[in-house]
Amino acid sequence: MLLLALLLAAAAPEPPSPAEIAAAAPAAAWRPIAADQLLLLETPRGTMAIELAPDWAPAHVAAIKALVAAERFDGGAITRVQDNYVVQWAARPLDGGPPPASAPADARPQRVRPAPLPAEYERPATGIAITPLGSPDSYAPSGFAGGWPVAQDPTTGTAWLAHCYGSVGVGRDLPPDTGDGAELYAVIGHGPRHLDRNITVVGRVAEGLHYYSSLPRGTGDLGFYKTPAEYTPITRVRLASTVADAPRFEVLDTASPAFAGYLKARANRTGFFIRPAGATDLCNVQVPVRRVK
Amino acid sequence: MLLLALLLAAAAPEPPSPAEIAAAAPAAAWRPIAADQLLLLETPRGTMAIELAPDWAPAHVAAIKALVAAERFDGGAITRVQDNYVVQWAARPLDGGPPPASAPADARPQRVRPAPLPAEYERPATGIAITPLGSPDSYAPSGFAGGWPVAQDPTTGTAWLAHCYGSVGVGRDLPPDTGDGAELYAVIGHGPRHLDRNITVVGRVAEGLHYYSSLPRGTGDLGFYKTPAEYTPITRVRLASTVADAPRFEVLDTASPAFAGYLKARANRTGFFIRPAGATDLCNVQVPVRRVK
Repeated sequence: MLLLALLLAAAAPEPPSPAEIAAAAPAAAWRPIAADQLLLLETPRGTMAIELAPDWAPAHVAAIKALVAAERFDGGAITRVQDNYVVQWAARPLDGGPPPASAPADARPQRVRPAPLPAEYERPATGIAITPLGSPDSYAPSGFAGGWPVAQDPTTGTAWLAHCYGSVGVGRDLPPDTGDGAELYAVIGHGPRHLDRNITVVGRVAEGLHYYSSLPRGTGDLGFYKTPAEYTPITRVRLASTVADAPRFEVLDTASPAFAGYLKARANRTGFFIRPAGATDLCNVQVPVRRVK
Repeated sequence: MLLLALLLAAAAPEPPSPAEIAAAAPAAAWRPIAADQLLLLETPRGTMAIELAPDWAPAHVAAIKALVAAERFDGGAITRVQDNYVVQWAARPLDGGPPPASAPADARPQRVRPAPLPAEYERPATGIAITPLGSPDSYAPSGFAGGWPVAQDPTTGTAWLAHCYGSVGVGRDLPPDTGDGAELYAVIGHGPRHLDRNITVVGRVAEGLHYYSSLPRGTGDLGFYKTPAEYTPITRVRLASTVADAPRFEVLDTASPAFAGYLKARANRTGFFIRPAGATDLCNVQVPVRRVK
């Protein structure tokens, strides 16, 4: 019987891998990332492309776009890399000095702005179609909406973008409204879901995070670099819609049958995997993003 | 009422943070890592200290120790860094050639050995005291035993070490018994729990992973470096028990009251956190490890 089972297993075709399912998805299953929602952060290390999430954080996305239009990030710097946590970058301060060389402190110059931004930590879930994760989640019922990993709270009727590898959020000080978009971070470690609903998530890295996740870690508190000499200077940050020959990306539609197949395959890996987990956590799904130009 | 609540909140002392709880834990709550279970991997980038888990993978740990005693890792190299996944290193092949420059292929020289090792993917849970995580887990009931993050399967009565950031496992080819300890990896991304029970976990990094998580990512398949010129050469790997003035570490006893407080505080962060999650996933707990020399 064992031999027979082995023979049958050998004869059965291997089910397609998650990557193969994504690659075979029809064109209609892919959503383009709009060029005016795609940030390109350029340093000598390489370009990092970030998809913004205006549906989830409209005020913060607008503030970031205003900073980008004012070229405030040009001459800014990557000021913090904390292992298993985040890489963080800062705009030029309004006073013209260098980006801050220390751990966050309230009322730093770059935080001066006309009016505080609201805490866009969650939004009403009404009308948001969420494809369920299909596995338990440690934090909250989770799934996918519009290509984003999300979680929701049935008691408050709200939903929010989850902190996974590559999620981009807005640094803030202790008061919840002190983030102004002039300091942003990307997650480079185990998804810090405890940050969910405590910081405004404004997007996710579509390409190029590896240039920055491989930076030396800062040796100051919270992984801040101790001296500006350790910073990686930012050449410029632009919206792709303003850049000639900008790259273009597409995200697999998380409401599509192709994504349903992908999700199932992520939870039931084959090939190298002897014992499929039969489940997956939210951040191990990794919604497929592909470069099309 | 709101003002009163704010005043009361201001008057109430802030509960201790997870780090403060660990720092205040009594000496009896800390378990020393035995010097003969502590690997020191040395390269020009820095020393990475790895605690081995002989209770969980006795045959693999013995094989790794034999390779270390034979100085087989001296002159080896870090051959693979895949973003959001693993950094991997290899011993010198038995044929004296350089470590492999390509993605895994069966029957490479360093895999030649007297007899295959068993797949130590899980072990009977009988007699293992597991401190429950206290939150749902996407993959399996999870918790902590002897300082390790573990998961268990009530239907099989088995338990295993979970793949979290910093977990160290044994690279293998497609057949489950092809790992021999001559290729090891450490997790540098979101905990790949889908590898649980598919690869033998032999330990975790106690210190120094940041030297290697910050390496440039390999551009070959699976993050392997395309050429040996990209490798980081390994100076030597030794057991701390054979090295003069070796560092020493302690792990917080996961059965101690101090750890119970730490676990609760990890799930209910305060200070910067406005809305505590009230839960945590296994890999976000990060069992405290401290250097004592």
